[in-house]
Amino acid sequence: MFKRVAIIGLGLLGGSLGLALHKSGKVREITGYDLGKGVSERAAKVGAIDQPYDAMVDAVRGADLVILATPVGAMHALLQQLGPMLTPGTVVTDVASTKVQVISWAEEYLPASVDFIGGHPMSGKELSGVEAADKNLFAQHIYCLTPTRHTSAEAINKASELVEAVGGRLRFLDPAEHDALVASVSHLPFIASIALVESIAGSPGWLDASKLAASGFRDMSRLAAGSPEMYRDICLTNSEPLVRWLDEYMASLQDLRNRIANHDRTLGETFAEAQQLRQQWVLAQNVQEE
Amino acid sequence: MFKRVAIIGLGLLGGSLGLALHKSGKVREITGYDLGKGVSERAAKVGAIDQPYDAMVDAVRGADLVILATPVGAMHALLQQLGPMLTPGTVVTDVASTKVQVISWAEEYLPASVDFIGGHPMSGKELSGVEAADKNLFAQHIYCLTPTRHTSAEAINKASELVEAVGGRLRFLDPAEHDALVASVSHLPFIASIALVESIAGSPGWLDASKLAASGFRDMSRLAAGSPEMYRDICLTNSEPLVRWLDEYMASLQDLRNRIANHDRTLGETFAEAQQLRQQWVLAQNVQEE
Repeated sequence: MFKRVAIIGLGLLGGSLGLALHKSGKVREITGYDLGKGVSERAAKVGAIDQPYDAMVDAVRGADLVILATPVGAMHALLQQLGPMLTPGTVVTDVASTKVQVISWAEEYLPASVDFIGGHPMSGKELSGVEAADKNLFAQHIYCLTPTRHTSAEAINKASELVEAVGGRLRFLDPAEHDALVASVSHLPFIASIALVESIAGSPGWLDASKLAASGFRDMSRLAAGSPEMYRDICLTNSEPLVRWLDEYMASLQDLRNRIANHDRTLGETFAEAQQLRQQWVLAQNVQEE
Repeated sequence: MFKRVAIIGLGLLGGSLGLALHKSGKVREITGYDLGKGVSERAAKVGAIDQPYDAMVDAVRGADLVILATPVGAMHALLQQLGPMLTPGTVVTDVASTKVQVISWAEEYLPASVDFIGGHPMSGKELSGVEAADKNLFAQHIYCLTPTRHTSAEAINKASELVEAVGGRLRFLDPAEHDALVASVSHLPFIASIALVESIAGSPGWLDASKLAASGFRDMSRLAAGSPEMYRDICLTNSEPLVRWLDEYMASLQDLRNRIANHDRTLGETFAEAQQLRQQWVLAQNVQEE
């Protein structure tokens, strides 16, 4: 049971955390703050928070849990500002897409009297903003926590309680391991999609080609519709693992390219292997194809 | 008005052509043949053809239009076999995914007394087989015809009549231009998807990563679920344009990779550009996102 949870950043994730926490009945009071004019009032209106504040210092005062629900690009400035405002004993967690860099900022800027534990709910949808918030956004989805050897048992317990309250499937990961894993399954696919759109839709023949493009191009270009700023900041804060995965990907493309150039009939076996890997994943994770 | 149309190969495309032709009322009789045991009888049962035949020579006898509705991999042997069976004056067209190679086989194996014109309906769905056939499969979709300077006006007219009868949007393309365009919007995305599945799901960390993979990986791996044999044959018959596009794609990836390694903030502008290109395509083509 939480006395007072403060949510900083009231977009889709922050708003949904508020709604899910309210639904759980595990929080006495939820306070909120957002840089955007009028956002915290709208969050209160949709029931994501109980008490909106115009100043961050008031929102976090006396909170036993502070959730930083901003994109990773805002995290550096936020942690710098937040440091002097926190009540000793507060546990702080975040929801940003990359963890190593955020944790190093937290260690640099937060006082020793508060505990930080990185978090990453693997939930999302196309829409953004508190109006799109959804109390079931985390239900049945993986919610990663990334404690380090400096993280207290108290912080681990409180953050675990949060994950449980919002219905997430808790998964503990080392921060560097987390970043490498999301670089592969989430950031690499985004860059692959961007490069595809760039090379196809940025080419001189695109006017003709665009009329022939169908569901294959649609699926493979969908990620490129994501927020440019958010993905830029993900690339900036997860550069090293992402570059490693891009090198793997390009090696795999180069191999296929050479075999296509050589009219290699064993391509069929490679394609069958990939088909099978994909099918196994769909079955094991019970993936809905839409 | 067609007297007798023969459909060779009664899968999703062949079956759907039969249903759409029947619906149009523009054909007196549709005959059909398929290598698979019992397939042409099933096609007759679902109303795709009027008359099933056990021998191809009987199905094509006296037809004014013969449609080769097999995958490109079957086309070489089919054209060899078909050559001596055709009635002079017959027009032959196909539905294979690549055109230059198919046309050169047609020129090699079909007698001078019949006319060949390449075709490619840009329609499809996940399901295959005559049971999945759909009379509206071609409605509002682009249907390419690829005449060469040897193609007769008679062949162009008959094939155009076919496209109109099944509700397709007719588009004339030079065969080489067709192959280059589909290499970009259709075959390159497939190889990009295969390479992604190979490098991510073929890696040692996949057991852990697979649980974090979500909608981004789902969309980007969907094409890899396609038929390995069909895509192998597409690669074998469209090797040169596909290799050119793969080189473009890898150059684009390499550029992004270097800028990510250099923490280049202008990545955000590139991502915004790609987002915009994708959005323009969605609006211009009235794409349904599913």
